[in-house]
Order: sequence, then structure tokens, then C-alpha cells
Amino acid sequence: MKNPLLILLFSFLFCAENNLALGQTSDVYAQQRSTWLQKAEAAKPPLIKQNKKPVCVVKAVKDTSAYQGWKTEKTGEIESFYRSSFKQNNVRIIDFGEHLTGTFSCTFDTLGNISDAPVRFKLTFAEMPAELGEAFDPYPGGLSRAWLQDEIVTLPYTPYTITIPRRLSFRYVKIELLAASSYFDVCISDINMTATSCVQESKFTLAPQTDPMIQAINRVGLATLKECMQTVYEDGPKRDMRLWIGDLYLEALANTYSYQNNDLTKRCLYLLAGLAQPSGILNSNISEMPTPRAQNSITLDYCLLYNVALHEYLQVSGDQQTAQELWPVALNQLRLAQSYLNEEGLYDTAKQPQYWLVFDWKDNFDRHASIQGLMTFAFQHTCQLAELLGREDEIKEIPGLIKKMKKASRKYLYDKKQGVFVSGPDKQVSYLSQAWMALSETLSQKECARALLTAIENPAACYPGSPYGYHYVIDALIKCGLHQEARDMMLYYWGGMVQKGADTFWEVYDPNDDCRSPYNSHLVNSYCHAWSCTPVYFINKYPEIFQK
Amino acid sequence: MKNPLLILLFSFLFCAENNLALGQTSDVYAQQRSTWLQKAEAAKPPLIKQNKKPVCVVKAVKDTSAYQGWKTEKTGEIESFYRSSFKQNNVRIIDFGEHLTGTFSCTFDTLGNISDAPVRFKLTFAEMPAELGEAFDPYPGGLSRAWLQDEIVTLPYTPYTITIPRRLSFRYVKIELLAASSYFDVCISDINMTATSCVQESKFTLAPQTDPMIQAINRVGLATLKECMQTVYEDGPKRDMRLWIGDLYLEALANTYSYQNNDLTKRCLYLLAGLAQPSGILNSNISEMPTPRAQNSITLDYCLLYNVALHEYLQVSGDQQTAQELWPVALNQLRLAQSYLNEEGLYDTAKQPQYWLVFDWKDNFDRHASIQGLMTFAFQHTCQLAELLGREDEIKEIPGLIKKMKKASRKYLYDKKQGVFVSGPDKQVSYLSQAWMALSETLSQKECARALLTAIENPAACYPGSPYGYHYVIDALIKCGLHQEARDMMLYYWGGMVQKGADTFWEVYDPNDDCRSPYNSHLVNSYCHAWSCTPVYFINKYPEIFQK
Repeated sequence: MKNPLLILLFSFLFCAENNLALGQTSDVYAQQRSTWLQKAEAAKPPLIKQNKKPVCVVKAVKDTSAYQGWKTEKTGEIESFYRSSFKQNNVRIIDFGEHLTGTFSCTFDTLGNISDAPVRFKLTFAEMPAELGEAFDPYPGGLSRAWLQDEIVTLPYTPYTITIPRRLSFRYVKIELLAASSYFDVCISDINMTATSCVQESKFTLAPQTDPMIQAINRVGLATLKECMQTVYEDGPKRDMRLWIGDLYLEALANTYSYQNNDLTKRCLYLLAGLAQPSGILNSNISEMPTPRAQNSITLDYCLLYNVALHEYLQVSGDQQTAQELWPVALNQLRLAQSYLNEEGLYDTAKQPQYWLVFDWKDNFDRHASIQGLMTFAFQHTCQLAELLGREDEIKEIPGLIKKMKKASRKYLYDKKQGVFVSGPDKQVSYLSQAWMALSETLSQKECARALLTAIENPAACYPGSPYGYHYVIDALIKCGLHQEARDMMLYYWGGMVQKGADTFWEVYDPNDDCRSPYNSHLVNSYCHAWSCTPVYFINKYPEIFQK
Repeated sequence: MKNPLLILLFSFLFCAENNLALGQTSDVYAQQRSTWLQKAEAAKPPLIKQNKKPVCVVKAVKDTSAYQGWKTEKTGEIESFYRSSFKQNNVRIIDFGEHLTGTFSCTFDTLGNISDAPVRFKLTFAEMPAELGEAFDPYPGGLSRAWLQDEIVTLPYTPYTITIPRRLSFRYVKIELLAASSYFDVCISDINMTATSCVQESKFTLAPQTDPMIQAINRVGLATLKECMQTVYEDGPKRDMRLWIGDLYLEALANTYSYQNNDLTKRCLYLLAGLAQPSGILNSNISEMPTPRAQNSITLDYCLLYNVALHEYLQVSGDQQTAQELWPVALNQLRLAQSYLNEEGLYDTAKQPQYWLVFDWKDNFDRHASIQGLMTFAFQHTCQLAELLGREDEIKEIPGLIKKMKKASRKYLYDKKQGVFVSGPDKQVSYLSQAWMALSETLSQKECARALLTAIENPAACYPGSPYGYHYVIDALIKCGLHQEARDMMLYYWGGMVQKGADTFWEVYDPNDDCRSPYNSHLVNSYCHAWSCTPVYFINKYPEIFQK
């Protein structure tokens, strides 16, 4: 923040609004935090519990033509599984036929003689066939090995019922006998999975003539969203189980066009506000258990998407009170972002600290053009929010600033000759740079459409690494009127996951690399990931594009 | 059973007593079982719970001069253990300072940042330093690997309290961090061990001048017995957790001279009766959880010791009603044993089935002389029991039979020249052959004393492999007036365990082989074993021998 005028403006605005300036150690939200957290608690939706049973017995089969090299094959009926000997067959896999999240219990019983010693089992809960086929150790991953859902249980005697204490998320369970007495045999007599979600049925139905693949994508997207809608919008029910602003934004969009549980959105907006940094800046994510608490982590793109999510929430719910209460939070995110603009309105990549910008899981993706576009997009949403709240006066200078930003974007980030936005020292052409510039209406619709098509048609362009990235590309294609391209991309990308056997959509999917992982282990990737559910949003919001 | 007269006698007696003959498939105790099991339930003593805390931090140190090559050394105070980083020091051992049995809980907390991922720990509960120092896998043992007390726990978040579902028995806990997030550190903030036993304080005190080593042996014996007295007399609270007749007999003897909880003895006598074979023969052992049930296993020596234990119980408790009710059971065991005698009154090693005879854990130990002696001993006790119950008429022929058995013993099993009993085709000289012949008064006290001393002084003689075997040798030495030898043997054998660091007495102890195990793994041996507690009995019953 090199401009002394801006500094002055900042100080004034913060003193006026929050009686505190950014960067002070005192707590900007000292007065509001506990109220916000209470409101978050009050809005917590009850979990709907369903008792689920496995549907058949399968085996994991190595198959180079299958996704990640593994598939499952049915080997038996579930009826013959119950009460059958584990000594004769000490590794079994049961299939619930769908992705479930909740609490797993299992009753073991004795066969033959009485039990005279403890028995030990290993249970591996898997979202994907690869988790059944591949060894978890040695574990090369960068995240905690404990995310992998293998649990060792000791039955002191049988019959004995175990309940795995941690919440689990899976479709398959591999059950391995590790240790037993020679005196008796053991079997499973009952299995119970108490599956939870705060939602049950979508309020939308598709037109009957809808393409079967679009129907399948919608179904898998709904399953993904449902699994992630627990007592917060989780990013992934197997891995992370956290409320991230970016996921919240996309889940809330999809929720609007499916389950319509606005209380969950309200709860999450309040939680994020109540657990923001003392400076007023939002933390990127919140862990809910045992009590909600934020990770000390700022991601500037997510901070700004909070404003967009709050704007969307107000439009959908009409809940003025919440939006009014949380307006100061939105304003603080705006101010933070503003401080990263240079005099010409361009995002300053030299200013410290440079916060992590999420945008996508993709190596070597340059984020400069994207953050410039996202800031512009979010500033516009913040202005619209202010208008709905009668607060335009508080951000009078922003509409002018937006114009300046767009001008700077055109000047510094647009390659007129190629007709695309470029980003970074190597002038990288990426799908996402075009998408964010389109979503922010930085150029005309026609120019943006050309930029998008130019990037997409360029095999050397940096394509997104995740459904999160692809969401914004499709959103931009629709915005630019490229409906067929949007539909084609959904069929190619999400349809690709369906074709490869997805029950729920994956956190990371690269059609060219099945084992791609940001964590150095595809086993620890999340295979039911909130940010991947947005076909639900597109398909139900734009029936004219997708339901034909 | 070759004698037709005996068969006739049997049939008559069983029809009279039980309205059924041995070997029929109908249930001899059909009328009584449920009453007996109800009485067992009614006599179940309440468990006394005590909350125990670890006293210090230790490490396991390899030391060839230590028992089994391992010892512990204190490395820190427990106060500095709580809240200290597991990332800095990912393996810790805490020491409770005493052997405990019960339920273990532990609260983990976050250090530094908030927890953003599950954490995994391995907890190893150890009776002995070797269990801390040596790897459990690969496991060579013959019993279930699941007896070894290592448990892997996943904390979905911190703070989090885990309770290990199985009951545990240990002095030390090794806590290893297996998996964590790079984002935060973890510590332990609280540990709770809810220790249980149905007894608390011995009703006996030793004379003040008692030799300190005898005092120590008594103390360790009391701890052993207390740990094994739960809701049944268990053989070992870490491994087996079962009620075996042989252990019951010795525990009840020690209980009489310490805690005096006669209800537990009563409960166990009823349980064994209620869960006997349909033929009327007792099973050797019972597992209590989840509901009491017997292992289908007959050990003839244990069957007969039931009679001795019932006789002792009646003498100690004066509980005529129980003894009267259980008399038919004693009678059935007597009859079974009787059927194994040939015409001369010698145990017939050719008769089928040959039941397992426990006697001791010792390879190549020949049991013929011992079973002959034990049968004689138990028949005498059964006669005394019958007298106390006014039931002599029912076993009128037994006193004569006992005389015949002794005559046969002298004729076939006594080597007059050496002055010792010999056993088996190789005429093995063992401590236990002499002990059982002495306890049964097969020869005169003087002859028995000579036989015992001759065996003990013979380096080639087969010495016992377990405290269970040594118990009968010491009992026999006392019976023969060899008081100094009895005391010396206790100091040598149980004193040896104390000198080697025993907190509780071990299931198996060979002064010449630290790692001796009947199960091919000394790690799965029980180091708090009921049958090893009997110094409590000797020291308190014979103060003139031991309390000086």
C-alpha cells in the first residue's frame, strides 16, 4: 500500500466502521463474535440419520483400463457373507453400493467352539477401488497419514460389537482377520452404517428428455453435495471435513438449485465471521470438531468469495438481518483486497505478505490474471450487496476503482494480438485467466468469448487441475453465451468421472493423469469433494442448456 | 473300565444320584444348571474401582544382565510429560509404578496451531520391560497375537479423549505418534486408569521381624492375587482372563490367608458346575465375557482339584448348603477318575480318551506318578468332604480303593533303592512325582521326605517349569516337615522373581531360562498369574516357617 491517501482512507473507514484499524492487535469483532457464533449454533441443521446395509461382496481387481488401475467385481451375495468363516477367507470386501458418511458398527460372532482369546481385525474404509487394492504404507503423502481410513480393532471376546469412533466416509469396507485363536472361528453377524446428512431430497427434477449422461452427472453431483452437507458445508467428508470459504460458495450455489437448506449457508457465514482474525480478515477454513475453530490461514481469493457468497445468500434467502450484520465482514475483505492494488488498479504481486491464492490444484498455474479478475468480480458483487443493504455510501469509490482495474487488466494482462489474457512473467495462457476475466466482465462478452475459445483451443494452454477450476470455466462459458461449449465441457470433464465409475465427484481429476494428487498420494485425495458438485447448479439453473 | 463289577457299580450310583449314567448324551445337571448359574451370578462380587495415574516417565534399556535382557530407567517426572510435544519426542513410556488391571483413558490435546487433521497413536501396554523393548511382529507365538496389548487409535481431532475398549493389564504404557499433520503438534493432557479388583486389603499382617525378602514375596503375591480377583478368579488378567479349576484352587487357598472373599470362591464353584459337560464332567476353564461359557476341554487333574477346592471352601466358609448342592459334581469327578484305575488301583495310561493333565508347564515331564498321587490326594479330600456332608455312604468303597492305589503306587512307581518315585517308561525322577506322592501320603512322612530330598539333590531330576508346579513341591516339603527346605525353595524361586524385578508373579519362570514360554513367545506369557500367588498362602498359614 504505497498510496498515502489510500492509507488515510483505510484508517478512516475502519475507525468509522469497526472502531479499529487493520493490523492492530485488538479484535475488530470483539463486540460481535459471540453473538455470531451463537447464531451459527442456532442455525445448525439437525442431521438426518439413515441405517444402511451393505449390498454385496466384491473383490478388488487390478485392471490397467480401469481408473487408477483398479476396479471391483461382485463375488457374492451379502446373505452368504454373514456368518461365514473368516479363517477360510480372511480378507473380504463389502460394498454398500453408494457413498456414505457416518458411523460404522459391526457385530462379530463365534463359529464352532466358544471364543477363548481376543481377535484382531483391520477394517479399511474406501471411497475408491484403489484404496482397496493398494497398500497404504509406506505412505508418501504430504497430509497426515491418519486421514486414510484403516482402523485396527481388537475384540476382547465374541460375540462383540465394535463401533469405529471416528466418522467415516466410504462405499467399500475391506475386513481383514489379523489375529485369532486356533481354537475357534469368527464371522460377522451384523453390520450397521448410520449414514448422516442434513439433507435428503432435491427440490428439483430434470426434464424427462434430459440426456442420460447429464442425468447421471446430476445424480452424482447431488450425492456429492448431500454427503458434504453435514453440520457445516464440508469440503470432503473423508478428507478435510472442513468448512472452506471456496467450497462454501460453490456448495451454496448448488444448494440453491437442489436441497435449498439456507440455514446451513447462514450457519457457515456466521461461523466464518465469528472465527475471523482479530484484524477482521477471514480465515480460509474452519474445523468444526470438537468446537468450531479456525485455521490461522488467509487466502485472498477465498476472502473475496465470502462477499460473493453473502450476496448470493441474501438474494436467495431475503435474509436482510444476517446480511446487514455481516456487512462489516464483507467490507473488511474488500479493504484488504483493495490494499493489494497499485495506483493503476492492478494487483501488486510484490506487496507483502502475499497470501496463498487457491484458485485450483495445478502446478505452475500463474494466478496473477485470475486474482485480478476475481477481485473485480467480487468487488462488483460487493457493490450489489451494498446496494441491497442501502450501504452504497460506505464504498462510494469502488465503482470507479472497478473501472480502473478493468483498464489495468486490459493494459497489462491482455494480449490483444492473440485475443487472450496472459499471466505472469512467462505470459501464461490459462483457461482460468480467461474465465475470471469473463466472469468479471473485464472485456466485452464477445472479447471474453474469444479469449475463452482461444485458450481452450490451444493445446499448450494451462487447463484446470480440479473440478473447482473447471466450475469457473463453465460459468464463464455460459456467461459468454458459449452454451454448447459449456455443455461439452461438463460432459467431457464430469461425464469423464462418471464414465470412470464415480459415485461422487472427486477433489482432483485430470483426464490425462488418474493418479494426480496435490498431496503426493492419490489415496489421500478426497473422492467426494464439495467443490466438484456444481453440475447440480448448472444443470438445474440452466435447463435450456443442459436438460435437452 | 474293564471290570464288569465296576461298570455295574457305576451305573447304579449314577442312576441313584443323577438318574443318568456317564456317557449318555442327556444332561446330568439338567435340573440344576440354571439354579447354579443364578447362584453364581448372585455371588458375583462388586468391582472396587480406583483411579490411578502414571508416576514417572521411563525408557526401555537393553541390558544383558536384566531379566529377559530389558530394564526400565526413569527419564523424567510425569509433570513434564503432560503437555509436552510428541513431535519432538514421538515415543514415550509412562510408568504407573505398579501392575494394574482395568480401563485406560487418555486425553490428547493440541499444541501450537489448531488441529486440522486426524492423528494416529500406537499404545502398547506392557507388564514387562521386554514388552516395551522388543517388537511384537513378526509374532512367533502359538496363542492369538491379539493377546498382545498394542492398540492403534485414530483421533479425528484434538482435544480428544480415547478409552481403549478392551480391559488392559499392565504397569507401563508406550505411546508412539504414528501419523500427524505438519500443521500442529500434539500432547497428552490427562491420563486415567480405572483399576479394578474385587478386593482391596489383606486381613493378615506379617510379624515385624519377617525377613525383608519374605515380606517382598508376600507383597508381590498379594498384588498378583488382587489383580487376578476380578468377577471370577482369573488365571491372568493380561492373558487368558479365564477361570481355570487349577488356578481357582490355588487362588482360593491364598484368598483364605489374605482377602477372605469367599463369595468369589462360591461363585466360581457354581459357575464351573453350571457349565459342566452334559456328562457331568467339569470343563477345565470358563470364559466370563460376554456371558459365562465353558471351553469344551477336560483336564483330569483339574477335575479332581475341584473336589479339593470344594472341600477347602466348606472348611473355610462353613457353607453347608453350597457344598451339599455341589456334592454330585464332586462325585462325578471322582467317578470319572475312578474309571481310569486298573484292577490294581493304578492309573491306566492306555485307557482312552487320555485327557490333558496340566500339572506344570514343562517339556518332557512324565505325569504318570503325579496323576496317581493327585488322584489319591483328591480321593482323600473327597472322602473328608463326604464326611462333613454326611455322605460317606455314597462312596463307601473309596477308602479301600485309596489303600489299593497307594499299594499300587509303591509297587509300580517307587524305586526303593533310590528312595524316589519314578514315572513313565524312562523312570523319570521329577520333583512333582515326589510332591504328589507326599501330598497324598502314599508313603510315610519319612519316606516322602527322603524322596523329595533325593529328587531335589539330583541335578538330573526334572524340576518344575512353573510356579504352579513349585507350589505343590513347597506344600509337600512343609507336609514332610522339611521347613527350611520349603523356605529356601520359596526364597530361591519366588525370591528370584522379586530380585529380577517382578511386580506380580509370573506364569512361567525358569531360573535358567528367562525367555521360556509354553507358547513360543515370552511376550505372550502372563506376568501376573494367579497360580503364582501362593506364597501368600504359605507365608500367612505357616508363620513359624516363614515369618522369622
